[in-house]
Formats: sequence, C-alpha cells, structure tokens
Amino acid sequence: MANFRNIKSMLKPRSVAVIGASRDPDKVGHVILQNYINSGYDGRLYPVNKNAEGKILGLKTYASVTDIGSQIDLAVIAVPAQFVPSVMEECGKARVKTAIVVSGGFAEVGNKDLQDQLVASANKYSITMMGPNCLGVMDPRSRVDTLFLPTYKLSKAQIGGVSFMAQSGAVGSTILDLIGGEGFGLSKFISYGNAAQLDEVDILNYLMEDDETKVIIMYLEGIKRGKEFIDVAKKAGAKKPVIVLKAGKTAAGTKAAHSHTAALAGDFEVQEAIFRQAGFIIAQDISELLYYAKIFASEPAPRGPRVAIITNGGGAGVLTTDAVASSGVLKIADFTNQTKKVLARSMPPLVNITNPLDLAGDAGAKRYNDALDALEGDPNVDMIIVIMLFQTPGADSASAAKLIDYKSRTLKPMIAISIGSEYTEMHNRMMESAGLPVYDSPTAAAHSLAALYRYVLFRDRKR
Amino acid sequence: MANFRNIKSMLKPRSVAVIGASRDPDKVGHVILQNYINSGYDGRLYPVNKNAEGKILGLKTYASVTDIGSQIDLAVIAVPAQFVPSVMEECGKARVKTAIVVSGGFAEVGNKDLQDQLVASANKYSITMMGPNCLGVMDPRSRVDTLFLPTYKLSKAQIGGVSFMAQSGAVGSTILDLIGGEGFGLSKFISYGNAAQLDEVDILNYLMEDDETKVIIMYLEGIKRGKEFIDVAKKAGAKKPVIVLKAGKTAAGTKAAHSHTAALAGDFEVQEAIFRQAGFIIAQDISELLYYAKIFASEPAPRGPRVAIITNGGGAGVLTTDAVASSGVLKIADFTNQTKKVLARSMPPLVNITNPLDLAGDAGAKRYNDALDALEGDPNVDMIIVIMLFQTPGADSASAAKLIDYKSRTLKPMIAISIGSEYTEMHNRMMESAGLPVYDSPTAAAHSLAALYRYVLFRDRKR
Repeated sequence: MANFRNIKSMLKPRSVAVIGASRDPDKVGHVILQNYINSGYDGRLYPVNKNAEGKILGLKTYASVTDIGSQIDLAVIAVPAQFVPSVMEECGKARVKTAIVVSGGFAEVGNKDLQDQLVASANKYSITMMGPNCLGVMDPRSRVDTLFLPTYKLSKAQIGGVSFMAQSGAVGSTILDLIGGEGFGLSKFISYGNAAQLDEVDILNYLMEDDETKVIIMYLEGIKRGKEFIDVAKKAGAKKPVIVLKAGKTAAGTKAAHSHTAALAGDFEVQEAIFRQAGFIIAQDISELLYYAKIFASEPAPRGPRVAIITNGGGAGVLTTDAVASSGVLKIADFTNQTKKVLARSMPPLVNITNPLDLAGDAGAKRYNDALDALEGDPNVDMIIVIMLFQTPGADSASAAKLIDYKSRTLKPMIAISIGSEYTEMHNRMMESAGLPVYDSPTAAAHSLAALYRYVLFRDRKR
Repeated sequence: MANFRNIKSMLKPRSVAVIGASRDPDKVGHVILQNYINSGYDGRLYPVNKNAEGKILGLKTYASVTDIGSQIDLAVIAVPAQFVPSVMEECGKARVKTAIVVSGGFAEVGNKDLQDQLVASANKYSITMMGPNCLGVMDPRSRVDTLFLPTYKLSKAQIGGVSFMAQSGAVGSTILDLIGGEGFGLSKFISYGNAAQLDEVDILNYLMEDDETKVIIMYLEGIKRGKEFIDVAKKAGAKKPVIVLKAGKTAAGTKAAHSHTAALAGDFEVQEAIFRQAGFIIAQDISELLYYAKIFASEPAPRGPRVAIITNGGGAGVLTTDAVASSGVLKIADFTNQTKKVLARSMPPLVNITNPLDLAGDAGAKRYNDALDALEGDPNVDMIIVIMLFQTPGADSASAAKLIDYKSRTLKPMIAISIGSEYTEMHNRMMESAGLPVYDSPTAAAHSLAALYRYVLFRDRKR
C-alpha cells in the first residue's frame, strides 16, 4: 500500500531511474532525462531502455531497472501503457522505493483493468506510486523535475514556500507557469493524475507535515476518499493556509470532470461545506488561486480588520474603498488624531486628511514615504493598501523603490494596487520580485486581504 | 449654455489655441503643445502666453487669444486657477467656440465660487466648456490630444470604435493605458473632471450620436442631472452597447467619492436600476470594464445562448463549463448528430466527442482546425470558446495562427481563453492584435459572453 511519507523519496531522491529514456528528442523519456540533466540534479541518474545500448545523453543505459544493482529511490516511468505493469513488476524486484507513472492510456480512456493491474503490482512490492497519466513532481530545492514539457513554454519559479498539488496536468502546468511569473516562490509541484494509488488525501497529508511548505494550493476535480479527506483537511487547515480551486461545481461541469479524469466530482455544496469547516480558502477561478497564494506567501497575520488606503488617483481610492467596504469582513480604518496631526503637517494643503488618503497625481516618493510613516505607528490601522497609478506625473521608479523599502520595514500586511500596460508592468515586476504583492484590481486586492483576515479569525476560533 | 453638439469642435478642431503654453518642459502647457506637435495634428496651432514673446516650440506665440485674429475652434486652458475666469472672458471676446480647462483648483478643493464664475463667463459667450480639473480629450483619428501625461507612461491605442468617458483623470489614464495594451482600438477618450458645464448627460448624448463610436464605456463617480441622465441613458442603451463602472457604491465609497470630485454619488441601488433599465452592461471592476469592452468591440450578436467549448486541457474545459453553466443565461450546446459524426471521423480515438471537446494536450493546429470546422456548421452552436493552453506540448505559433485564420472566417462570436506567463502572453498579443479577444480566466470569458447575449435579449425586448 501507499505510504504518503515515502513521497519524500520522490521529491528528494538520491537516485532516479528514467524508464523509457530515449535518444529521440521527441520522446517524453528523452525530455525528462534532459530536464534532470539541465536542472543540475546532483543525485545518481540511470537511463533505462530495453532496446537501447551504450549511452543516452552521455549516461550509461540499462536494459532493465533490475540491472542497475544499487538502491533506486525513484523510478520515472514513461513507456506505453500496455508495458507499464510489467515495468512495475521489475521495479518491485529491484526494490525501487517510489514510482511516478507519467504514461497515459489507463482509466481516463476506459482502461480500468490495466490500471487496476498496475496498482496491484505496485502494492505487491510496497512501491509508493504517483499517477498514471500525470506530470509528476517538481522541487526547485532538490532540482527534481519530471515534467515532460518544453522548458521555454514555462516561466521558471523561484524557490519559495508555496506547494501546489493538481490533479490535471494541463491546468497544473498553466498555474505553474503563472507561479513562475509571480514574485513568490515554489516549494513543491505535484501533479497526481488518475490518483490510482497516491491520491489527494496522501498528498495533503504529506504537504501538511512538510516544513518547507508554508502555503498549500490545490486544484481538485474529484475527491476519492470522502471521510479520510475530511480528516486530513481539518488537520491541514488548522496547520497552514490551504487554498482550493474545485472544478466541477455545476451539473454540466461535474459531467465534464468525469469524462476528464474519471473523477466523481460529487456535490459541490457538500464539498464547499467541508472546505469551509477546515478553514480552506476557496478560490473561484485560476486568477483567484494566484491572488490568494500571493498574499498568504508573503504577508504576516493582520491584528484586526481595519484597512488604510493610500492612493495617487482619487477614483482608484473610491473603487478600493467600495471593494474593502463590501468584502464582508474588512473595515475602513479611522486614523487616530495623532496620525491626522502628523499628516496635516507633512502633506501639502490640497491633500484631504481622510481614509482613503488621496496624495494626488503629482505625488512622488517623498509624499508616499511621509504618508506610510504616519500610518505605521497608527494603532487603528491593521493593514495597508497602497495604490500607485504609474500613468500619473509623479509616479516613477523612485516611488516604486520607496514602496519596496517601506515594505521591508513594516510589520503590518501591506499590498499594492497598480494597473496598466508596459511602463506599469515593469514596475510591478520590480515590486513583486522584492516581496511586495501587487494586485491589478481593487476587487482582487480587497478579496485577498479579506481572505487573509478570515483565516486569522478561523485560527483564533480554533484556539 | 453648453451645446453637446459642439463637442465635435473639441474633438475635430481645425484650430487650437494652447493658453498657458510654455518653454519650460515641466509645465503642463508645454507638454500639451508638444503632444499636439508629436501627434501629427494638422490643424492650426497657436501657443498663447501673456509673458512669452517670439516662438515656443517653433510656433509664433500670442500674448492673448484675442490677438490671433482668426477662428479658434478649441482653446486648451492650462493656467493657474485664479487666472482661468479672465482667460475665459478673453476667449469669449475672441469668439472661441469651445474650451477645455485642464487646470485644477476649483470645486474639488472647495473653490466653488471660482468655478461658478468660470461657468458664468463661458455661458455668457456661449462657449462649450469641458472641465475644469480634467485631462481633456484624445481622438486618434483627428490626432487631438490634450493629455498632459508623459507619453512613455501610456500605451498608445490604435484607432477603433470604443469611446471612453471618465470623470476621474487618474483612473481615466489608467484605463486608457490598458486600452492601449488591448487589441481593440479607441474612438474617443473624454475626461471631463468637475463637469462644471459639460457633464455626463452631454457627453453621453454626443457619443450616442457619433458614428465613429460603436461601443461606449464610462467610468462614473456622480450623476448630476438625474432626470436628464435617465432620458439619455435609455436612448443611448437602445442605440449602442454602453458599459458602465460606477464608483461610490458603498456608504464608505460614496463618502470618498464626494471628497474626490465633489460628486454626489447617490444611491447605488437606484442607479443600478437605471442602468439595467437602459440596458447598460454593469462592470464591477476596471478589469471587467475592459473585458466587456473587448467583446462588444469585436463580436457579432449571438443568435442564441448555446456555447461550444474546445480545449487542449481537460481541467480548463471543466472550469469553463462551470463558468458558462453558472452564468445565468448561457447554455452548454448539444452538438447535432451530424457534428458528432464529423468529429468522430476527424478526431483521434482518445478524444471524447462531447462538449466541452477536449482535444488533449498534444493537439496542434490541425486538430483545432478540424474541430472548428465541424462546429461552424452546427446549428446548435451559437458561440464558441476556444481554450488554448500554450504550456502543453502541441500548442505553438502555428496553433495560434490557425485560430486567427478561423476567426477571420467564422460568423459566430468566438473568443479564446489562454492563461500563462511570457510564452503565452506573446501568443495572446498576436491573437488579440488580429481581432480575436483573449481572456485570462474562464470566469471572465463566460461573463463577457453572457453580457453579449444579455444585450441581444435586451434589444429584442425593445423591438
């Protein structure tokens, strides 16, 4: 049977066999081997191909995994479906600890028997198995990467604290690409496909206990073991933030999910209740999944619900006030008299001392700095949203640098809203890579702060 | 009094006086004059500055607008607030037709009397006046551009059919920057600031009758003349799509709006009812405003609510099915038997012939083409969503080119969903600039198609 603790041997293997390794650059087994070499993986690497002799990509090739003669932590299996069960038998005889079956052609196309046969082989030899029909895993720390996708199509993620588990390979790689474009880093990516043996319960169990994982994000289609899922969800949600995007919410979507990964999507209302009880943050879309991951990855827990808004565009301040006020849980902060006095001294006369604080279109680095300084000491302010519209005359790289500088010092959750095309995007990348989460809409920013605060409330109730 | 038909003289002036023109590159009056010269505006251009002699930027300079001695269609006024009323008097004596007052320092900072004095002067001489405290106008066709923003901060919009009216300057320029980054083009940008004389009623009246304007998008803070607004809104909504983003929906937002442009934001529920009755499309955020503008700018009216979904990622197909099914108005299309037969012949065996149609991760240009060909003739399909995840092995520039080619031939509304970082964004720009609207989330795509279809239903009810 599967042991979720063995997932560690998949993510931090000292030795990897790539079964189905090939000299043909179009073959999955070639891409995977090449990716391992390119990533700088420093464990032992063994190409296996029963039809190839000599070397593949400069590495000695074996006809069978049983010929290697030393401990294999992970076998990555990329041979046609009909050969996979016998390859798994060989892995068992070679005492391979874990296997990732990337090959498709099992239950997802109706070959349930072949899949059952595969699981039986793995179980017989106590091999912990991911897949079949999956992309496998990526761990930027150990440089393990079983993804058989052209690397130029994916933005490369930095090392970080967000782990992402996804049933679907394509949605998984899309989100992984988006994570690469964000400032926060990746801890683990796990695409588990048909979940024939290791499933969402095992993976959630593993990530919950993994110290490198600070935030878990998951893309789910079906839940196989309802009761066990509820148990692990409760523990995981109490331990770290878990953000979930569930596909198959409507009757039509459920039907579509079934034809995709043979998943039984189940009743979304029941699932939603389970998620909420576990304190999971529910994302409605891929973009929300990223918004939430971003804020939980970088921001401290807010002490309360009161939000200060600083802006260089009055209208954007109004839109953000609307979004905060209608979030259901956040409040517009009332500045203390002390803060008002400080601001009245430091701001030019045209600035109304109120929240949202409109610094006006000519505000540059200094005015932002003075405003932030005044808010940092205000006990009525729990969180800060800084709006910077880079189309205005005053906003430039120096203003962005000032926000970054301030972000490194403040103890309060602080996020930015910045919306625009090229000139703006350049500055957004600058701010994000320095750890300041940037949102491209007032709604997204307010929803994200609200999720952060709701999680604080959830944890407080648990104590 | 203002005559909204005179707005044409602001947008298509044969002669422009820039009052407050300056040699100092930091002055607004310099930037505006320089922008006119750079844009290639081919009417007559007169710098006016009572303290400057000789030439500014190579153009003969006048001490007063009354010295010019020929017809001035538009005076752009950029002098300090206290001088604006007397400048307006001079404009009156010189029989200037229209004026845009970009200067701030009026009602928005409490100087209501100065603003009243300004309006009185304009009215006395029947000058149609925009502002004060506004960015003015931009019309890529006539090359008129009164925006005093550094051009490198704004993406330049192509010529197109979308006109955008905005009360707020900063939000206006932010959205203008986003429009520049989109594939659809701009007809007019009108930032009207304090709306002391020309207001949202006049501008909506003008854009409604303007043949170059196919779609109107508006960012509103307050509505000044409720009854007149209702009248023009009804006419405008019946004539062309009007998309509205209203700031100041909540009590806190309303308060913030008042301190911004002294606008009385009013009761949003009442306003929302007015918008709905007029058939306006209500955007909840800046991003939604753009999503809706994009679809109305390019797509024909759908004949019905039935949506076909083609994808190369099963999970994305499920998420999109959920979004379509929960849109409230759209339906998942049932393919005809004829379509199913054609697809069964042209698709590889692993493709399930169902909607959403999952072409699988190795689908390239040909499979997309065959699928689209089959759907084009299907009378059960009213609209098409094509999902292309460029992280998958099969998707590349040839696939994107195939969608563009197909888009140029289909008579049905067709949009794409494509989500990712650099490699994806490159292809998205390619598709958008060729007229295929691309969405970065299933929800945004479904909401946009739903808005398109709701507008069809609204028009049909009006008939």
